[in-house]
Amino acid sequence: MSDNRSHVDGARVLADLHALRGIGTYKTGVHKPTFSEPHMRSLEWLAQRLPEAALAADIDGIGNVFGTSTKSGPKLLAGSHLESQNFAGWLDGPLGVVYALEAARVINPDPNTNGAVEVAAWCDEEGHFGSFLGSRSYVGGVTEADIDAARDRNSGRTMREALRDVGLAGRARAKAERGRHIGYLEAHIEQGETLESGGLKIGVVTSIVGIWQYRITFTGEQNHAGTTRMGVRKDAGVALARFCVDIDDRFPASCGPRTVWTTGRITLDPGAPSIIPGSAEMLFQIRDDDPDVIGRLEDLLRSMAADVSAQGRCSVAVERIRTGAPAMMDTAFQQAIEAASVAFAGGKSIRMPSGAGHDAQILATIMPAGMLFVPSMGGISHHWSENTDDADIVTGAQVFVDACRRLLAG
Amino acid sequence: MSDNRSHVDGARVLADLHALRGIGTYKTGVHKPTFSEPHMRSLEWLAQRLPEAALAADIDGIGNVFGTSTKSGPKLLAGSHLESQNFAGWLDGPLGVVYALEAARVINPDPNTNGAVEVAAWCDEEGHFGSFLGSRSYVGGVTEADIDAARDRNSGRTMREALRDVGLAGRARAKAERGRHIGYLEAHIEQGETLESGGLKIGVVTSIVGIWQYRITFTGEQNHAGTTRMGVRKDAGVALARFCVDIDDRFPASCGPRTVWTTGRITLDPGAPSIIPGSAEMLFQIRDDDPDVIGRLEDLLRSMAADVSAQGRCSVAVERIRTGAPAMMDTAFQQAIEAASVAFAGGKSIRMPSGAGHDAQILATIMPAGMLFVPSMGGISHHWSENTDDADIVTGAQVFVDACRRLLAG
Repeated sequence: MSDNRSHVDGARVLADLHALRGIGTYKTGVHKPTFSEPHMRSLEWLAQRLPEAALAADIDGIGNVFGTSTKSGPKLLAGSHLESQNFAGWLDGPLGVVYALEAARVINPDPNTNGAVEVAAWCDEEGHFGSFLGSRSYVGGVTEADIDAARDRNSGRTMREALRDVGLAGRARAKAERGRHIGYLEAHIEQGETLESGGLKIGVVTSIVGIWQYRITFTGEQNHAGTTRMGVRKDAGVALARFCVDIDDRFPASCGPRTVWTTGRITLDPGAPSIIPGSAEMLFQIRDDDPDVIGRLEDLLRSMAADVSAQGRCSVAVERIRTGAPAMMDTAFQQAIEAASVAFAGGKSIRMPSGAGHDAQILATIMPAGMLFVPSMGGISHHWSENTDDADIVTGAQVFVDACRRLLAG
Repeated sequence: MSDNRSHVDGARVLADLHALRGIGTYKTGVHKPTFSEPHMRSLEWLAQRLPEAALAADIDGIGNVFGTSTKSGPKLLAGSHLESQNFAGWLDGPLGVVYALEAARVINPDPNTNGAVEVAAWCDEEGHFGSFLGSRSYVGGVTEADIDAARDRNSGRTMREALRDVGLAGRARAKAERGRHIGYLEAHIEQGETLESGGLKIGVVTSIVGIWQYRITFTGEQNHAGTTRMGVRKDAGVALARFCVDIDDRFPASCGPRTVWTTGRITLDPGAPSIIPGSAEMLFQIRDDDPDVIGRLEDLLRSMAADVSAQGRCSVAVERIRTGAPAMMDTAFQQAIEAASVAFAGGKSIRMPSGAGHDAQILATIMPAGMLFVPSMGGISHHWSENTDDADIVTGAQVFVDACRRLLAG
């Protein structure tokens, strides 16, 4: 299938990524919250590039950008996202969009390649307004009422206001056309250090882990920090700190080989220096692709909470607020990526689950889907210092485009 | 000195306290932040009552209310404060003001008692804008620049704006007149449970503890909560939780008999459920009336921080942001309160330090000062459910007025 010449223009790929980095620049990264001015300019930038790949550009009513082809033959959907986390990295999202654009530029005009690559930039993958609202809208999972309820988690601006402000209010939302695509392929930076530490160039994603999220609430007794003796305190903050440490000490004996858990936010109430916190809350998250492992850990969490409550000083309540849905990547897609890695990355690939969520997990609910990773320097992610070596970016593009060719050849 | 009839009108004391509870009511407590509408109405309420005690009322340029006497003979200053913590108790502050008012009403018109009680309600004891700004202004410890810099910790409103809004801008600030007063007496609820649990009615305050406050900052590495393996994480939040637990485990071996310590606020940065916190901060406070004990604990804190930093995963910085100044209460004042307790509370008193800060510690820097406590039900304080039994309130008033008589008799 591959002739070992991908026809990928590495300099063009890098130039495109740098063009996107130049919109909403923050230090060496970018700050492009969903529907911000730099985000909208990035969508326009993409819409203007799509005709170079013989694609018709459109931005739909939820901010998804599509490039659609009139070429006959099979069609592969490819893409990622263009908004960023706040003050975050330049490649998280844009890498997959530019790879998809490059694949379309190389493949679509080529009369020797059957079919076409269509490009998508999904809106709000980073969840400023919700959870995968753009790709979920495309697969039919977002109602008008969901949009009515969505709000920017930072500014509080409603999604309706935001859509009006950026001129997208009233536009139709594009829906997946049954049978149009043979599947969906997405590239992304790894956001971890498995590839870098193993001297590898390509991660062949086997599954995307599910995310289970919990609100853990501690109730003690609010009191004066000067007049309440240590022995009689019911300090909800100290109870929370002990619980955090216990989780870290006890989870390793029950978790799976790739389970991760994180306390991302802690709030003490009322949060004043001279008041013993009467209540406290932590946002706690577990990720794994094996629901059995999660079940075991959730049982442990609840039994730990019951033990603390039984001691009588503070009570602990564990509430699950998000239930994970691990997504399996299609086997044929994994094989195509692996074969392309042999052709263009010296076979330096590894099969691995994705610990991060991606739009591919949403597309996987309606069509075969696959993902490939390129290395992240130092594993750093969701931070402006995130980076990938230029040579690795170009290798990834060659593997990506070759995998597209293989998938279209069937 | 005392004839065992205090002439205190218990019903009048309770009625006054209920009148103040009726201004800015929140559940069974009150919400009267400094310079809020209910706070200002409470100041006006007091100003209108002062003539009943043969006192001329004035509100000065920082919101202190004074009732001054033209009676000859010695003068004793007495009072407390009228603003509250947010959504807090009805007696914290008003009790001492109403006792002072009652003492003035009983003593000032009485031709058989030498001298007079003058009344003060100090503004912002609860520290919405700073630290004891009202009483510190009176003793000469607040500059115009301090007022320029002061801001409401909740709303961010500057003190200048607040003073303008409530009509106090441009008024002079009253300053202590050297030699005018034989001393300062303040009553307050205990805010702990030493009295209640010992079946006691009066706390004779020996000293007011100092407050040492620290900002402890943890620096790790911000990263993605899904893709960063547990083994390589530098989670600043987990480091903070372990530090909190270590403090609680190790302080008891080095502290004094009445030392207390509190982590009142914890902030994880950036505070998102899917991001490993790269930095974290805790506000930590220690109170004691013995600077040697504090010195020992601060050394321990710094050596614990150095140990964590030396392990190399996260670094910890300990910054002292407030240095305590314990205040000794005058011996003659303690004896007067104790004698009054024998006369009106069956001698059910105990000498004890105050774990909370009070305006008396500021007044103690320029004149002899004393404090008495009445019991707090369940030791609850800085919460709207704070309360004291009516009979204990009346007993406290009798002891307070009798102590005033004894001090004026010299």
